[in-house]
Amino acid sequence: MDQALCRSVLITGANRGIGLGLVEGFLAASPCPEVVIATCRCPESAQELQKLCKQYSNIRVLPLDVVSESSIKETVKKVEDIVGEKGLNCLINNAGINVLGSLEDVTTEAMLRTFETNTVAQLMLSKAFLPLLKKAAKQSATMGCHRAAIVNMSSISASIGLAKSNDIYHTIYPYRISKAALNMLTKCLATDLKLEGILCIALHPGWIQTDMGGTKAPLKVQDAVPSIISLLAQLSEKDNGAFLDWEGKTLPW
Amino acid sequence: MDQALCRSVLITGANRGIGLGLVEGFLAASPCPEVVIATCRCPESAQELQKLCKQYSNIRVLPLDVVSESSIKETVKKVEDIVGEKGLNCLINNAGINVLGSLEDVTTEAMLRTFETNTVAQLMLSKAFLPLLKKAAKQSATMGCHRAAIVNMSSISASIGLAKSNDIYHTIYPYRISKAALNMLTKCLATDLKLEGILCIALHPGWIQTDMGGTKAPLKVQDAVPSIISLLAQLSEKDNGAFLDWEGKTLPW
Repeated sequence: MDQALCRSVLITGANRGIGLGLVEGFLAASPCPEVVIATCRCPESAQELQKLCKQYSNIRVLPLDVVSESSIKETVKKVEDIVGEKGLNCLINNAGINVLGSLEDVTTEAMLRTFETNTVAQLMLSKAFLPLLKKAAKQSATMGCHRAAIVNMSSISASIGLAKSNDIYHTIYPYRISKAALNMLTKCLATDLKLEGILCIALHPGWIQTDMGGTKAPLKVQDAVPSIISLLAQLSEKDNGAFLDWEGKTLPW
Repeated sequence: MDQALCRSVLITGANRGIGLGLVEGFLAASPCPEVVIATCRCPESAQELQKLCKQYSNIRVLPLDVVSESSIKETVKKVEDIVGEKGLNCLINNAGINVLGSLEDVTTEAMLRTFETNTVAQLMLSKAFLPLLKKAAKQSATMGCHRAAIVNMSSISASIGLAKSNDIYHTIYPYRISKAALNMLTKCLATDLKLEGILCIALHPGWIQTDMGGTKAPLKVQDAVPSIISLLAQLSEKDNGAFLDWEGKTLPW
């Protein structure tokens, strides 16, 4: 029998889109994690997650506002109770926002709010879950999601190297700048946490048909999720600090 | 006789460090710009700039708080009066802060304040001076600082590609993340403003002995400034959107 990808995984922004897709993907995996922790701001209005709770015994849904330090603190306590001494194997920082803004109409407020949600929150969540990730890292030797990992949801639009004239991203200044910053954060975390045995990557999940991705996106959630889960299962030390797409291809910073 | 590097240049954060060095360098250049506009938060306490005002007739010192939209607006009006119909050739976004923070002690407040000053302010300044840069761009054909340019002061610590284990930058999470974000902003501006004839680059000025660079830095301001001014004079279309060091070497994103 294959080994499960990881014993425990936590996914933020799990009420819809790729976050929800990943929760479903992990729950349907065989063998599946002992516990899949799905967080979102308002679990009571997350109908899809509520349905999954009736269907699966190994899902836990927790409220989490990623830009609230007190909310993060409460969630960490609850997760500690769930995972116990084995710690948390995999933190998927998926929650994010896209406040539209082109060079012409972008505002300071849009820049700051997007950066706080897409970059600072991922840093604060990584810091807050560090004790639980370290606990998990002590249970194993080789790096990977089976041991301890932080997966930051990035975007191909965050690639400074790929940005070109008249690209399709000219209306998302706040988003792509916050995600480029997230890429730097990922590299910092990867270098600082390597000795602890915690792997960190930035992941471009593909351009997916979601509320954020829109209807023109070429990929459906159900197409992208199996690739992402398979990629996560294969991650090893060589991938630490990488910027990968859903198929495992390295993207330029 | 050689052509002056540019007719007009504006440097933010010009009261000390590399900003002050650049003001002195431009004023001492031969031939020098018709007007060198030095901005800082409190001109009245900027003694070095006051001295330069007694020595040179082509320097203007203006108050500017880069994180205040009303201050930016007032400064643009004054610059408009100074440069007139010829517009502004070169905007050097040099003002920046370094709020220390390692993974252990970094705070949300430090992240947001640094991002606002080092990234969002450069975006808002670029937007605010755009009409004056566009006026200048119409006076010439080939791209460069002689025509219209935005120079964003970046840092080698902002290179995601160069970040490595145990590097010397582990205490500057807010700074290096804000500067990586600034690099993305630079690339966005470069792609969006190319058709207007406005060149944009991110510049690593070298590790310089300043209040920010500290005493361990290998370069002195007076060593770095001539290289930077010579580099700025040589910039052309091929450099648009580049990340260059003070000697013109391309750095990886």
